[in-house]
This record gives sequence, structure tokens and C-alpha cells, in this order.
Amino acid sequence: MAEGKSKILIIGGTGYIGKFIVEASAKEGHPTFALVRESTVSDPVKGKIIENFKSLGVNLVFGDLYDHGSLVAAIKQVEVVISTVGIMQLADQTKIIAAIKEAGNVKRFLPSEFGLDVDRLNAVEPAKSTFAVKVQFRRAIEEAGIPYTYVASNCFAGYFLPSFVQPGATSPPRDKVIILGDGNQKVVYNKEDDIGTYTVRAVDDPRTLNKILYLKPPKNIYSFNELVALWEKKIGKTLEKIYVPEEQVLKQIEESPMPINIILAVNHSIFVKGDSTNFKIEESFGVEAAELYPDVKYTTVEDYLNAFV
Amino acid sequence: MAEGKSKILIIGGTGYIGKFIVEASAKEGHPTFALVRESTVSDPVKGKIIENFKSLGVNLVFGDLYDHGSLVAAIKQVEVVISTVGIMQLADQTKIIAAIKEAGNVKRFLPSEFGLDVDRLNAVEPAKSTFAVKVQFRRAIEEAGIPYTYVASNCFAGYFLPSFVQPGATSPPRDKVIILGDGNQKVVYNKEDDIGTYTVRAVDDPRTLNKILYLKPPKNIYSFNELVALWEKKIGKTLEKIYVPEEQVLKQIEESPMPINIILAVNHSIFVKGDSTNFKIEESFGVEAAELYPDVKYTTVEDYLNAFV
Repeated sequence: MAEGKSKILIIGGTGYIGKFIVEASAKEGHPTFALVRESTVSDPVKGKIIENFKSLGVNLVFGDLYDHGSLVAAIKQVEVVISTVGIMQLADQTKIIAAIKEAGNVKRFLPSEFGLDVDRLNAVEPAKSTFAVKVQFRRAIEEAGIPYTYVASNCFAGYFLPSFVQPGATSPPRDKVIILGDGNQKVVYNKEDDIGTYTVRAVDDPRTLNKILYLKPPKNIYSFNELVALWEKKIGKTLEKIYVPEEQVLKQIEESPMPINIILAVNHSIFVKGDSTNFKIEESFGVEAAELYPDVKYTTVEDYLNAFV
Repeated sequence: MAEGKSKILIIGGTGYIGKFIVEASAKEGHPTFALVRESTVSDPVKGKIIENFKSLGVNLVFGDLYDHGSLVAAIKQVEVVISTVGIMQLADQTKIIAAIKEAGNVKRFLPSEFGLDVDRLNAVEPAKSTFAVKVQFRRAIEEAGIPYTYVASNCFAGYFLPSFVQPGATSPPRDKVIILGDGNQKVVYNKEDDIGTYTVRAVDDPRTLNKILYLKPPKNIYSFNELVALWEKKIGKTLEKIYVPEEQVLKQIEESPMPINIILAVNHSIFVKGDSTNFKIEESFGVEAAELYPDVKYTTVEDYLNAFV
């Protein structure tokens, strides 16, 4: 181990949030290993990400979630395993449990979470079943007795802030804005790089052992109404506000095709139900990242929005 | 069996495509069973769908994909099992295989497909891994020796046609239109009701046994350029066309957050690579629905668009 920092294997490192975690791991000085399929190296999209990993000094380990031998061999090289596999592979993370058990050397496992705390949601279908896969996997980890940390990173800034959750938008609104529910529920936004940094900080920290790590930096918690007011102040203009009552949101979910219905139902949980903030973090199950790592200079929502003014 | 029509169990029947299949099954006169969780009856979104099932004479069977006993009991009541579980449950369809094996009475199993033929794609990541889950499940069915039909229903009209694949749009474009690639790849669109009808027709048909059923009605195959030309003719106006070269599409996929990156990569496969039409259906693996069931009066793309003029 370099300077007492655990060796980390990331499974799913070329995915959207995975690449930020791989980067953070390398930058924080952890010997960093990324499991990639040999075929992925030549993928037009992922190939470039892998090139970047090499330039960061990341060790590429060829293997596959579905190839038990390769998974065990990869895991045996490290102390910490972080999974950032995509939604389609969430259920198949049971294969990681089997490999961790066989390898027998893992001090900490972080499953693919990086969203809301799925044990404390008020989501409707089809989001409910979607989140249920993560819930089920949490129970499987606990049953297997594997030391874990679940990272509840809340909302990706890069997904929610440039668009202000306006369908199809790529920059914040300038004229009118659609607001789900009454716009008063508090929501937490985190920049992806910061999610990487906080996640990597947690891996060797005894305070996060068998706990949920919540990312709720105080300056990144806004109701939608507050977020719109902040944006209005920045652009010096008042927007037309179109409120969509919950009943209408539910009707839209019911009538929308895949994958729009899932996206809408997740937004319902976040913005109408306030599921990123509507419970107290109890010592028995959780810790908060900005409190644990006050030296991390996170990007605030206010700073993030400056790029779009 | 009523008039020689098999009893059908639909697992995932309250999902987006599932409800059309449940409806088609009931309307075509099959004794129809829908597996639902007791808790789903009170879900604000799915509860209404279940009410509609009751009015159609569908038999509700309380149970759960994750409750083996309930699954076996439900399957024992029928001859045909159709899975329309959502993307998060695709991998867990192995539980259906186990239950079908134990029940021992199933004449035909249709797994949750209802999209492109996943064995014949040129998709990039993250769509590639997404489709891989379906590929893997096909192999599991074949290995288990369960009689199957895979329904390659191609593009849902309700998702692609009202929006013309324009991000966030809910009605077809009136001024300008974004076209992925050169717009020349042929793409197949099918109305969800027709997907239901064709699917149900196939379940008792020996010609579809252990085959892929492709839904490619001749009047529903359009290149994007042809689709735009048809729409322009209908509204009597020429649209500004913005072509996005493949390289730029790939860059967008790389830079977009979840779930936008998956949606874009699926669109790349469909519109840039032409994966719904770019191969010949060979007798050894496939049959075409409009040829098998010429009496089905399907909704044409042309008729579908009339509602939006």
C-alpha cells in the first residue's frame, strides 16, 4: 500500500459516474485498478475513457462481471472494491458478492448506488421497482457479512442543473420553467467530481464502515423555488413559473412510454416527495460527507450555475 | 381452454408494453392472468391499470417475481408465460426459468424483449451492455430447453413518433428537426396495441416456435428523411434539417449523464446504424408478423401521424 492508502478496484469504471471515481481514486493517491473487458478498449465511446485512465496511471485489469475467474483474480489484487456498474447490471452484482467471498481479502465494498438512499423513499412505480433492485442488493451484502459503505450521493449536478429538469433542455431556462409539485421540497445536488472525491475518502475511514454515506454539503441544498430564485437573480430576469400538481405528474407517469416513465417517477420522488432530504440521518445508519471531510472544497450549486449565466 | 386458446400469464403486465399485451390477450379471447404484487393494487400509478384489467375480465394473481412459490403456483394455472418485466428486472428473469422448469407445463415462453433483435446489433456502450442482458437471457432460455418466441417489435410508435426523437418534445417538429447520422437508415415503428395483437397471435402458432418474431409491417418502415418528408407533406411546410454526424453522436453519448447516455446510444443503434432493418430475416431463426397474420389491421405510420397534424 502506498502511504497507507488501500488499493481500489473499480468495476464499471468507464460508466458515467465510474469515470469520476476512477479519476478521484488515482488523484487521491490510491493504487487504482479498473476492470474492463478487452473488447471495450476498441469501443468508440469507452475507448477514449480507457485512454484517459492510462494517462492517470490506472491499472487496467482485463475481465468481466460475468467471468467469475477474472473477477476473483482482479479482486485478489486489492483491498477495496467499488462497483459503479450501470442499471442493467445492478442485479448481477451478486456475482461480485460471490467473487468477494471467494477472494476473501476485501476490507470494504461499495456497491453501485450513487443516488438517493433507496431504503428511505416514497417513490411510485415504475421507479419503485427500479430502486427495489438496489434495496435487494443491500440486503444481500448485509447477509453475506461483507463490510460495506453505501454512497447516497443524491442528484448529479451535471444531469439536473444544466437542464433545470426541463425535458430536453441543455441549458437553464430563460423564459419559463416547469416546476413539479409545489417546488418547496429540498433537494441536494453534487458535482460528479466531488462525488468521486467524497467516495474515495470514505473507503479507508472506519466511521463509514457499514454505514450510508450521505452527500449533503450545506451549500448544495435548495428547494426548486429557491433554485429558480437563485437563477433569476443571476440572469436578472423573472421567469414564468408553471407548477405541475402531483396528481398531474402521476398521470404523466402512467401515460408515458419507457424510459420517460421511469425518469418522471424518479423526478417525482426527488422533487415532489423530497426524498433526498425528508428524513433525519441517524447515527445508527448514516454519516454525512461534508461533516466528515470538511477540507474537501466542493463545488457549490451557486458556482456551478455561474458557467451558464 | 376456451376455443383452443391457451391460457396466458403475463408477468410485468402493469408495465408500459405489458398493459397492451394483457389487453390484447383478453380481447383475443385467451383466458388471461396477470401476476401482480398485492402492494401494487394501491400504487397511485399502477392501481388504475389494475382496475382496467379487472374490467377486461383479467384474472389477477397475487405474487412476485422474487417469491418462487407464488411464481410456480401462477405458472401452473396456464400454458403460456409472457414476461414484460422492466429493464431493471430483466436479469432476474432467471427466476422465471426456474419456476417454469418446476411447474413443467409451459408450452411457450416469451421473455421481456419487445425491442430490437439484440442478437443482431451494432450498438456502442452503454447501450451494448444494456442489450447484452437480453442476449444472455436468450441463451439461458435455450440452454434450459424451454419453448420460446422472441418478439422483436422494433420501435414503439408512442415513444418515437410524437417526439420525432427530438429531446424533450411531445409533438412533432414545426420549424427545425435534428437528424442523427445521414437519416437514410430504415427504421420500423409499431403502435403498441399492434405489438400486443401480434404478440398474442404468436403464442399458439407452431410457426413461431423457437423463432424470433419480427414486427416489420411494410407500411411502417421509413428512413428518418422519409419520415420527415411525410410529415412536411402533411403540414405543408419545409423544416430546417440539422444533421448530426455519427462522430458527434458518439461524443454526445460519451459526455452525457445517465440515463441520457443510454437513450442516445440506443438511438445511435436505431437511426445511425439502422439496427431494426439492416439484416435479412433467415428462415432458420425468424419469421415476420405481418406475413404470418395478414388479417391484422395494423395502424400505419401515416395514420398515426394524422393525429398530430
